[in-house]
Amino acid sequence: MPRRATTYLPPLERPLRARTRQRDLYELLRAAILDRRLRPGTRVPSTRELAREYGVARGTVVAVYGQLVSEGYLSGRVGAGTVVSETLPDELLSRGLPPQPRSTTTSHPPLKPTLSRRSRLFVDSPFPLRPAALAGQAFVAHRPALDAFPVKLWARVASSRLRRLSGAALADGDPLGDARLRGVIAAYLGSARGVRCEPDQVFILSGTQQALELVARLVLDPGDAAWVEDPGYPGASRVLQASGATLCPVPVDAEGLCVSSGEDTSPRARLACVTPAHQAPLGVVMSLPRRLALLDWARRRRAWIFEDDYDSEYRYESRPLPALQGLDSLGCVLHAGSFSKTLFPSLRLGYLVVPHSIVDVVARARSLVDRYPGILPQAVLADFIEDGHYARHLRRMRELYAERRDALARSIANRLGGALALPEGGAGLDTVGWLGAGFEEQDVVTTAAAHRVLLEPLTRYRLQAKLPPGVLLGFASLSVRKIDEGVTRLARVLDGR
Amino acid sequence: MPRRATTYLPPLERPLRARTRQRDLYELLRAAILDRRLRPGTRVPSTRELAREYGVARGTVVAVYGQLVSEGYLSGRVGAGTVVSETLPDELLSRGLPPQPRSTTTSHPPLKPTLSRRSRLFVDSPFPLRPAALAGQAFVAHRPALDAFPVKLWARVASSRLRRLSGAALADGDPLGDARLRGVIAAYLGSARGVRCEPDQVFILSGTQQALELVARLVLDPGDAAWVEDPGYPGASRVLQASGATLCPVPVDAEGLCVSSGEDTSPRARLACVTPAHQAPLGVVMSLPRRLALLDWARRRRAWIFEDDYDSEYRYESRPLPALQGLDSLGCVLHAGSFSKTLFPSLRLGYLVVPHSIVDVVARARSLVDRYPGILPQAVLADFIEDGHYARHLRRMRELYAERRDALARSIANRLGGALALPEGGAGLDTVGWLGAGFEEQDVVTTAAAHRVLLEPLTRYRLQAKLPPGVLLGFASLSVRKIDEGVTRLARVLDGR
Repeated sequence: MPRRATTYLPPLERPLRARTRQRDLYELLRAAILDRRLRPGTRVPSTRELAREYGVARGTVVAVYGQLVSEGYLSGRVGAGTVVSETLPDELLSRGLPPQPRSTTTSHPPLKPTLSRRSRLFVDSPFPLRPAALAGQAFVAHRPALDAFPVKLWARVASSRLRRLSGAALADGDPLGDARLRGVIAAYLGSARGVRCEPDQVFILSGTQQALELVARLVLDPGDAAWVEDPGYPGASRVLQASGATLCPVPVDAEGLCVSSGEDTSPRARLACVTPAHQAPLGVVMSLPRRLALLDWARRRRAWIFEDDYDSEYRYESRPLPALQGLDSLGCVLHAGSFSKTLFPSLRLGYLVVPHSIVDVVARARSLVDRYPGILPQAVLADFIEDGHYARHLRRMRELYAERRDALARSIANRLGGALALPEGGAGLDTVGWLGAGFEEQDVVTTAAAHRVLLEPLTRYRLQAKLPPGVLLGFASLSVRKIDEGVTRLARVLDGR
Repeated sequence: MPRRATTYLPPLERPLRARTRQRDLYELLRAAILDRRLRPGTRVPSTRELAREYGVARGTVVAVYGQLVSEGYLSGRVGAGTVVSETLPDELLSRGLPPQPRSTTTSHPPLKPTLSRRSRLFVDSPFPLRPAALAGQAFVAHRPALDAFPVKLWARVASSRLRRLSGAALADGDPLGDARLRGVIAAYLGSARGVRCEPDQVFILSGTQQALELVARLVLDPGDAAWVEDPGYPGASRVLQASGATLCPVPVDAEGLCVSSGEDTSPRARLACVTPAHQAPLGVVMSLPRRLALLDWARRRRAWIFEDDYDSEYRYESRPLPALQGLDSLGCVLHAGSFSKTLFPSLRLGYLVVPHSIVDVVARARSLVDRYPGILPQAVLADFIEDGHYARHLRRMRELYAERRDALARSIANRLGGALALPEGGAGLDTVGWLGAGFEEQDVVTTAAAHRVLLEPLTRYRLQAKLPPGVLLGFASLSVRKIDEGVTRLARVLDGR
């Protein structure tokens, strides 16, 4: 019969499990200390006694005691009189719970710590915090045709890369990103977009949002002015705001950003954030004279230009326009793009091309704030582009989206003649639609939503600009049947008003 | 015989290629405009003429003219007298090159745009900008044993996920990260680390660096004070600095951060950045009394605690200690960890656990500055953990690293007795080694490097602390043979002094 231990021993409620014996014993003793069954200052049984009492190896008890000592529950040296620590705060001991605040001069409940003032700059995000499943719903905007994405091909390319996975690919990488992917992107941007760069100017990031966020901090101090297109992409203006920039809305007309207007109202801006290839949301292309005027302004003012090469791959009536970056001889254009729309949104890969002069500081900043995106997806993307799949996919999508855009235009012309007018031409995944006389923007959006037709009010994109009433309609992710159905429902809504 | 065109037509140097006809024609005309063969104001041939002249479809010419008009090279309406634009700047026309700056009042070359003042805060990164291939070299620190990583198993898990890849997984995701991965991590942190959280408090990020960078901006305004461990992890102090924080170095002793010392020198700090499980670089564990004192300070001062749960998985002589977060009843601990060391560095996935009270603002900030890491790697990681592979891998690595740590300790005791002393116990991938009397830290590091033995001087980790001379030695990534060889070489170096 076992000899009684010299002190209280918490009873075993069930046999110690073989696999978790040490852990169970630890929990048992810790709980007994926390609820004061083992009181501060009490000497605990010797390891020999405890081992015998609980039927475990002595080494297990030694390990558990060691653990409790190292955490401060026990003190003294194992084997030479181990006692329950006196230094544990009373609150912890009496409640068996995490420490409650000590009584202070007042009896108010403790105040939670507060956030920084600048955290308030993040208050306004245009991105859904819980993205809803709106895929395939007319006329959800900013969505590529994921049902037409070659999932099996992507899986095959990725699996083939995985089969060749080596230890080297697991090791720490370059803050610029995978060297092969940077090479492939530099080549692609050169031939398809007229971007003049070497692979060492290309940074791989999670997307345009991260690119602009980084740029904003590197070129703007808090309070510095930045031009943003008005109407324009809210993701850009909000992230500039979050970095402390002062937004200077600059109007957009049929030739793109009105550079002279920007010069009139805020000549001292340090950055201009533009979408020359396909203005978001109006879809206009920045004309060459405007591009040159913008570059000239940047040169005279020693300002930077952030070129968001958004949706440039999708033009349906002419070849995509070369990028502004290709016209920049001074090194003031920062060129960014993303694979979220051309491949798929959850890929989270994009790029930022910077002038040689700032490669080092960008690399240092990247290595501090994020380092680099996962290497394996970068390698798979490099394979996908190198093997020609990317160019083929773009071509297929260009045809598909052109078809869908035409279907939308036709359907609207047939059934919504006076109510909704689409501009000529077309690019990207969405189109603006101008509302006819007598229609009120928010009213149309709300009524349509009640009939399961999603329209984005243009108001969402404006800062100060006066705009005629209009909405944004996505078409790229919708089959022709869905488009027709959507237009029919919308016609019923607008007729019934 | 074709009728001559009414104006200059650039000669075809080679036949237009069928596949790139439109593009070639565009380039041909654009080049002619840029080098003034087609002069400003010149009327260009009709589309019909040009089509006949070059033997292409008229539609092709219409498209090319449309493109050139939309870019500003041509003006006027197609078919109604199209002329080369007058508005092109002379510089562009005369050089066929990107625009040069217009002459201004001075004749100095144009000044490049400058960076922000705060960009200078990024000047100092502890991460290599071009990571060298140091794998397997004694005693490179901070490296897991990639040669022992189950590459094939990872590839199998990933390929299996790829085979089940659906359109839904391609769509835009949650700024918190993949819901299943967050659930798996919450469960793992609960059982293995004593972290008390629900999946909706878990954010998936690229790692601890990104987590601290985000936290710094949300809880600190420029100039706000933050406690950092001294010596401590340079990645943490540099990123705090980059966010504008004022660093308050707080000494570390055998029980971890000296809370009372921090209170004496900078009581008003708004954030304490700590490594309680395994202090970087000294390897000590923060004692329970210190943990409670730190929580008490945070409560009284309404400050935040950033818990970097660095290397907590690897303890060789006792169970890993529960996290500080589990003791926090107020909601002031921000708990971060990474899979870079437990799986592989190029994975770039980690997590940040935040109190319920700030989930929303963190989600908004994440959605603005980066959104979320690629979903597919997140899904693969969730599979790897769920299937039990992660726990098994950790167990295997714990045994392997313990073996390697013992080999290092034995080898050093045998051959470097008086020169280098390792502390008792052990955790993580590296150990500090204290240099014996008469050895100078930088001298030893330099001499060792000349003999291909890499030692990190502890100086690299200190801010103000006075430390005895010491070095950091990595062991986790080295075979026992490499360890022995390294110690032998090091012994020769130190003996030869």
